[in-house]
Amino acid sequence: MRQDLNLFVELCDYLLQEEQKNPVARPVETSELFQKLDLSLNDFGVVDQDLVSNLKSIIKYTPKTASTAFFNQLFGGRVSKATLGDLLAVMLNNSMYTYKVAGPHVGIEKEIINNIIQLSGYPKDSSGTLAAGGSMTNFMALLMARDQKSPEVRAEGLNKTMTLYTSEASHYSISKNAVLSGIGKNNVRLVKTNEKGEMDAAHLEQLVKKDMQAGHTPFFVNATAGTTVLGGFDDITSISKICKTYNLWLHVDGAYCGSVIFSERYKYLVNGLELSDSFSLNAHKMLGTPLGCSIIITKHKAQLHHSFSNEADYLYQTDSDDFNLGKISLQCGRRNDALKLWTLWKSIGKKGLEKIVDHQFELAEYARAYISNHPDYSLYSFDDSISVCFNYRDIPANLLCTALYKEAELMVGFGRFRDTEFVRMVTINTVLKKEDILNFFQTIEAFVSKDLLKSSLPEA
Amino acid sequence: MRQDLNLFVELCDYLLQEEQKNPVARPVETSELFQKLDLSLNDFGVVDQDLVSNLKSIIKYTPKTASTAFFNQLFGGRVSKATLGDLLAVMLNNSMYTYKVAGPHVGIEKEIINNIIQLSGYPKDSSGTLAAGGSMTNFMALLMARDQKSPEVRAEGLNKTMTLYTSEASHYSISKNAVLSGIGKNNVRLVKTNEKGEMDAAHLEQLVKKDMQAGHTPFFVNATAGTTVLGGFDDITSISKICKTYNLWLHVDGAYCGSVIFSERYKYLVNGLELSDSFSLNAHKMLGTPLGCSIIITKHKAQLHHSFSNEADYLYQTDSDDFNLGKISLQCGRRNDALKLWTLWKSIGKKGLEKIVDHQFELAEYARAYISNHPDYSLYSFDDSISVCFNYRDIPANLLCTALYKEAELMVGFGRFRDTEFVRMVTINTVLKKEDILNFFQTIEAFVSKDLLKSSLPEA
Repeated sequence: MRQDLNLFVELCDYLLQEEQKNPVARPVETSELFQKLDLSLNDFGVVDQDLVSNLKSIIKYTPKTASTAFFNQLFGGRVSKATLGDLLAVMLNNSMYTYKVAGPHVGIEKEIINNIIQLSGYPKDSSGTLAAGGSMTNFMALLMARDQKSPEVRAEGLNKTMTLYTSEASHYSISKNAVLSGIGKNNVRLVKTNEKGEMDAAHLEQLVKKDMQAGHTPFFVNATAGTTVLGGFDDITSISKICKTYNLWLHVDGAYCGSVIFSERYKYLVNGLELSDSFSLNAHKMLGTPLGCSIIITKHKAQLHHSFSNEADYLYQTDSDDFNLGKISLQCGRRNDALKLWTLWKSIGKKGLEKIVDHQFELAEYARAYISNHPDYSLYSFDDSISVCFNYRDIPANLLCTALYKEAELMVGFGRFRDTEFVRMVTINTVLKKEDILNFFQTIEAFVSKDLLKSSLPEA
Repeated sequence: MRQDLNLFVELCDYLLQEEQKNPVARPVETSELFQKLDLSLNDFGVVDQDLVSNLKSIIKYTPKTASTAFFNQLFGGRVSKATLGDLLAVMLNNSMYTYKVAGPHVGIEKEIINNIIQLSGYPKDSSGTLAAGGSMTNFMALLMARDQKSPEVRAEGLNKTMTLYTSEASHYSISKNAVLSGIGKNNVRLVKTNEKGEMDAAHLEQLVKKDMQAGHTPFFVNATAGTTVLGGFDDITSISKICKTYNLWLHVDGAYCGSVIFSERYKYLVNGLELSDSFSLNAHKMLGTPLGCSIIITKHKAQLHHSFSNEADYLYQTDSDDFNLGKISLQCGRRNDALKLWTLWKSIGKKGLEKIVDHQFELAEYARAYISNHPDYSLYSFDDSISVCFNYRDIPANLLCTALYKEAELMVGFGRFRDTEFVRMVTINTVLKKEDILNFFQTIEAFVSKDLLKSSLPEA
């Protein structure tokens, strides 16, 4: 292993240089991928020297999610203390299902969960766990809600129409999870939103009433803290009132922006969070840990156990359920995704996490100000969102983003709200500075003015 | 980052030394965990020196899954070229959903899938993906089967009784997944097994017929390649005949031992695999990669897409569905779990993977021979299984295993088949040698003869 650690460090040095020199890797056409790079797996292996040179070619053409030119996803950057923790998790290779084989890492996961419970205003006897992604934590919330409303489903299976509610602007996983769980896509009600993409609570109530009148069983409302495109926040307090009235489980999907709980200044965006039944956030988004670090907490400790527990006596051989995390996990074996957040939190404190969150809003504010001050741009975003949505000179956003990618200038994507498509730049990479934001806009302007856009478009 | 890489290497050196010096970490009582180790997360951070010394204490008390004394789970050891790949995946931090942000790693995942398709005897136009664990790949198989049999369920939800079949000796995830998917636990039929824990195909057929007569909809059979406790293999060919007759989806759960496809000598254990509809294996088990590397392939490429696809235009912005792996994933964002298997395979070839697999069977054979030659032991295992199950001197297996753990002698668990409980030693750690197996037994014998067992038992 020691020798391969040296190879690893050599490859890291190469990667860190490449990120600086070529912040956007030149994309390889999919039709040329297997010719351009040796990705083949064969009967016989290769010597270390060849493996390393092969890996360097792969690194060269790998999209650089930690570079100063990456604005494409709801994650990005590299917060090195979190990376340190995840590297260590790979080396330790513990599975989180039992205390016997995970030991102190069970305590680490519990410490994270308990601190997030406290920051969310949940009661002390709440519980929580980690899953492989935000779609999966949303899935766990839906299942707990289904099982709480109709406990017979776990044994007998579904044989009635259960309905759930989420806004038009929410993540696609809510509908997908309805399919996975046997609820069915037709039983997902998409609630209208206002002009900021926030759920219309009055419409939610209408939909619930209609379903009750039809004899259906409403059971679950998903509110979003950070909608996928616009980065908007549903009004948890008003939604919660409806949930209380009709006895519906309220989940807050904070995969994208739930980490505002760490910020004194921005936590108001999830006002009313303490009224919800479950809440999820992805530390690999706003907090900058490596993928994945998806956390869910719930007030209903017994329901979490009831929905995910299992009797596997080959597995649980020592200690209590409280320390055998497999009893509250979606899956069985589970890699240690807690350590990366713990090393980060331990090294910079909650105050440091707050700075990370606040800085992203500051970068977004700076970007919005730039757009507002330059007449060639149209702004579609609002205050207190880290999704900065805009168009430049009436250039179709999809053409602009694809050209910037193909020409290895910038990694940025486009989004759509109602009838408008626009560039969605995400200021989630917390190691960026204002000059990187400035550089982003100036790169677009230079790119367009050099007529580079035209040359990269398909021929007429 | 560069400085934290140095800290990482320093911590690795400490870990590698500890693994040698103390192959079994002394367990900390859960009641003392938060006193003995500083796991606290606070408002303010700590300096690097304190973080490193803190992490060293945590490493010291972390169960050593890569040591020569770890026989506790269906994984273990550290194959360093695979670890190298996973460390690199942490640094690169690509999400596998789109070609735009994963680039060559999409090709790496496809190359792995295509090679496993070939080794499994599946048609060339088969497809596959990775998920966060073996429970999740089993879940994907169940969902594809459900959706193929009853396509209306995806839209309308479940409103009939669908039944599925798995052996008494199969993994608990099959029943758990039936609950998650809305099928219900009561609609899981547990098929009887023979004395080796292999599914009784005649009983399977009886159960299917009975359900059809009752007006239910049978849809899914799970066969196991490597049962959790005994490491047995269901007879795929005979099960397949029944599946063909009654039009049932046949999944082969090879999470534990599906990697026998890499061995010319042992691939006979999954004879008939090419007759199945889907097949899953965990490279983090027999192939020794870090957690997790769970792979599923299926002949039904269109069904994989149909069951897991999603219309997220904010996400899929370049290239075809074939290269945007989010279209066939259970979840949305997904860490790169392919690279670790690719670096291993590339560096040692299929022939090297074969040696890894064969070596585990050789170690098991050696262990069984030792047991057979020593009258103080009773053997419960059979040939061609890497689960070596035994009892020693009529000592209750659970007492022995727990005492060995508490006294930091060995990490090994117990299992049960029918009315017998026994020690289950797993020879899956491929970096072990025969002397490590010998040492395992000698440690037990010395431990018992020194009467250490009694001292660690609770007082009467």
